[in-house]
Amino acid sequence: MAAAAVSVRFHPVAAAGRAGASRRNRLSSVIRAQSAPVAAALTQDDLKRLAAVRAVEQVQSGMVLGLGTGSTAAFAVAEIGALLSSGKLSNIVGVPTSKRTFEQAQSLGIPLSTLDDHPRIDLAIDGADEVDPDLNLVKGRGGALLREKMVEAASDKFIVVVDETKLVTGLGGSGLAMPVEVVQFCWKYNQVRLQDLFNEEGCEAKLRLDENGKPYVTDNSNYIVDLYFKTPIKDALAAGKEISVLEGVVEHGLFLNMASSVIIAGTDGVSVKTK
Amino acid sequence: MAAAAVSVRFHPVAAAGRAGASRRNRLSSVIRAQSAPVAAALTQDDLKRLAAVRAVEQVQSGMVLGLGTGSTAAFAVAEIGALLSSGKLSNIVGVPTSKRTFEQAQSLGIPLSTLDDHPRIDLAIDGADEVDPDLNLVKGRGGALLREKMVEAASDKFIVVVDETKLVTGLGGSGLAMPVEVVQFCWKYNQVRLQDLFNEEGCEAKLRLDENGKPYVTDNSNYIVDLYFKTPIKDALAAGKEISVLEGVVEHGLFLNMASSVIIAGTDGVSVKTK
Repeated sequence: MAAAAVSVRFHPVAAAGRAGASRRNRLSSVIRAQSAPVAAALTQDDLKRLAAVRAVEQVQSGMVLGLGTGSTAAFAVAEIGALLSSGKLSNIVGVPTSKRTFEQAQSLGIPLSTLDDHPRIDLAIDGADEVDPDLNLVKGRGGALLREKMVEAASDKFIVVVDETKLVTGLGGSGLAMPVEVVQFCWKYNQVRLQDLFNEEGCEAKLRLDENGKPYVTDNSNYIVDLYFKTPIKDALAAGKEISVLEGVVEHGLFLNMASSVIIAGTDGVSVKTK
Repeated sequence: MAAAAVSVRFHPVAAAGRAGASRRNRLSSVIRAQSAPVAAALTQDDLKRLAAVRAVEQVQSGMVLGLGTGSTAAFAVAEIGALLSSGKLSNIVGVPTSKRTFEQAQSLGIPLSTLDDHPRIDLAIDGADEVDPDLNLVKGRGGALLREKMVEAASDKFIVVVDETKLVTGLGGSGLAMPVEVVQFCWKYNQVRLQDLFNEEGCEAKLRLDENGKPYVTDNSNYIVDLYFKTPIKDALAAGKEISVLEGVVEHGLFLNMASSVIIAGTDGVSVKTK
């Protein structure tokens, strides 16, 4: 089932000119600063910020918020920090999905907690690496997939913020990594087993390395095996189950039936898809 | 479906007297050393050794062996080491399921490998904490559940060795721990979720502590939440799936449809159950 069609669509310049959009002021100034034609002048970072700020409009004082990880989520965290600092938001508690996000949020003065103390979250905002027509996602290229999935699964509402380059017709279709977090013990064994699961799609499974060429270690002391597909995953739901059942697999980057809505920033405006 | 009835049953004293049972010599001497009545004089360790040595009779030269963890498995590893050292077995490769077993096997001169290099194992021998009538198991009180499950799932044949105190009518029925390995991140959140899964059974979920009162850390840097049930788990297969699906759960101690046979040593002899 495809997600409901675009429910809201507006042009950024038009939005910037709308009255009463006080939270958009910072965004508007960004957009106004571009020289014409606006569409061509927006960078990918502008688009990410555009989507992130739009998502933060859903935040209300008193909420417990799941704070995502990655370049787009960082814009959302920055916006929440700015609104708190200006007094436009108050009584917010943030639950970060990574050590990086914890540090960013802490530096902005956002009160922080954990799932242990706040097991129910009102709203989570996070980026994604891929979004398919059913609003299923690939996430975790930033390495925080497990904590992201824990926090976002505990959220009443999960808003995904992406620029339009993240849209795919089928998950795995970008040709970029679909990460799987595995225990360090016998990771090669699981690398082979993971690759073998996707013979039909043509899959290459690679251990993720850090900048020094050593295995990348997650916040949970595990490794990541990145799966690269020649063709999109045929049945993502079945794939998710097959991956999960492998002993030693801790979590995978398929986020299925989790997103409440996806905010997509493109060069011709922002659109919102909801299920 | 209950497992096939006892397929072999013999009295330890009778076995000790049988001709040609060279591998049983060490065991026999243990049994002969007991004063009459034999049944009453056997300690739990004697029974564990009895079952372990019986399992090792299935080992053939040239095999890749999964080496279990715990007090009963340690008797099997010791027996394999003795048979290698005496030349009665040769060309064995062992895949240990814990650092402890690795150290024991290494000290005995057993050639060792990993699933990375030997992804297919001929025979695994390991103890269990509980065995139900269908040969489903609770394992992992020793803390090695994840590596045990990885190795034993990769084995063509998996022989479980227990003394008769481990038999239960339903898993969880011993009132002792059913362990769940969880990531350290937000373990309290998962402790609550795990306990809530088993309201019907009356479940208490406790973080496992080490001898210093600190959280016990597994070989994979995770924590263990031990589940204690008032009544046996009603549907172990469903329970296993419900536990696995929780984000942050790495593995659980329900070993379902994995055992090929169970060797049970009791004060009145040894019995073998096969599926």
